Amino acid sequence: MFGSPRILRAWKGEYGILVIAEVSIFPLGTGTPSVSQYVKVTIGELEASGLKCTPGPMGTTVEAETTEEAYAAIARAQAAIFELGVGRAYTVIKMDERRDVESRSVEDMMDSVRDRNAR
Amino acid sequence: MFGSPRILRAWKGEYGILVIAEVSIFPLGTGTPSVSQYVKVTIGELEASGLKCTPGPMGTTVEAETTEEAYAAIARAQAAIFELGVGRAYTVIKMDERRDVESRSVEDMMDSVRDRNAR
Amino acid sequence: MFGSPRILRAWKGEYGILVIAEVSIFPLGTGTPSVSQYVKVTIGELEASGLKCTPGPMGTTVEAETTEEAYAAIARAQAAIFELGVGRAYTVIKMDERRDVESRSVEDMMDSVRDRNAR
Amino acid sequence: MFGSPRILRAWKGEYGILVIAEVSIFPLGTGTPSVSQYVKVTIGELEASGLKCTPGPMGTTVEAETTEEAYAAIARAQAAIFELGVGRAYTVIKMDERRDVESRSVEDMMDSVRDRNAR
Repeated sequence: MFGSPRILRAWKGEYGILVIAEVSIFPLGTGTPSVSQYVKVTIGELEASGLKCTPGPMGTTVEAETTEEAYAAIARAQAAIFELGVGRAYTVIKMDERRDVESRSVEDMMDSVRDRNAR
Repeated sequence: MFGSPRILRAWKGEYGILVIAEVSIFPLGTGTPSVSQYVKVTIGELEASGLKCTPGPMGTTVEAETTEEAYAAIARAQAAIFELGVGRAYTVIKMDERRDVESRSVEDMMDSVRDRNAR
Repeated sequence: MFGSPRILRAWKGEYGILVIAEVSIFPLGTGTPSVSQYVKVTIGELEASGLKCTPGPMGTTVEAETTEEAYAAIARAQAAIFELGVGRAYTVIKMDERRDVESRSVEDMMDSVRDRNAR
Repeated sequence: MFGSPRILRAWKGEYGILVIAEVSIFPLGTGTPSVSQYVKVTIGELEASGLKCTPGPMGTTVEAETTEEAYAAIARAQAAIFELGVGRAYTVIKMDERRDVESRSVEDMMDSVRDRNAR
């Protein structure tokens, strides 16, 4: 995997952001229905990974060059949730990867949707 | 289901928004990797249902009083995608329902996350 | 929605199963990480709706003729979870709808995957 | 992350399966609504990673000791989909991680749900 031509090109900086992933992590059995404490830790950890993050109402979206980069950040966020003392956590990821473009961004995606009345 | 006390109370306006749902719909087999046309139709249909909508990079979030209200809007959006001539569509829904509060909103959820450095 | 030609045809029995949906429902803030009690109620309620159900490790799959039929069953299952006294529940749905076939089933889907070594 | 006590214990074999993840990968813009070819490749690649796999109608479930192990297998499966020539692929992951047990399995999860009429 790490030796594939595409990944090597990405390492050399020939590719930009190709992976957009939305992540939701929440603990089970905490005794309180509130999850904002955990959401804050998730966002903080994802931002600490250096990836661009866009918090949303139902998940945080990260932008990465490769799936590996996205998963490394997400795995760190999951680990951080367990460090808060929870015994079980559930994670939902929606990941959209393109290799037919040079680069993309959350901003571009929002723009292409927003101008729907523009024509 | 429709006769349950909670739903009756909701009909009488005693409850506000309790259901927040994020929806992503995309067609399979369209011949083009672009989905922005379908995303626009999805958002347009969800907004036409009268529910408050918040488009995001990986899905559109709707606010509803009941699950039934949310699903009716989502089903209409799915139908609209098929009216564009696609043969198969895949839908992902993440739904967060509370009955331990009187009302809630996407804005509240974003606020509770944003002030994470406030303390 | 309910008056669309396709739905009318479905009501007349001209269509079979076109919607396959996988549902996961779990409560937040229950004080215990175990969810099996809630999973059992979810499956029981989905089966009570008359739809064919296939329980899986990460969700229960239902087969329906229309999205409306699937959502009605899922909404009942969500209501049943709240009747157990939880204050907040999170639901994840993956729905695959086809209108380019007359009918389909979970069994067909499993068959098409299983014979991968057949060739 | 890799230096955390838990992960070190897992490396020493002190922990068993703690992560159960369901994965769905499908390409966008292929020109055909059929996805079985891609599902077969996904399952083949996940199995090639050495993790126990359980194919289901709406996704394949893998069992792993750590999130990192699960993500490495999933990333390989995604890469294999692109090697088939698609330009864009969408992945949905539901991951359930426990650290309050020594080990678990898909079989245990199915057992705990199946005996619901046993009492």
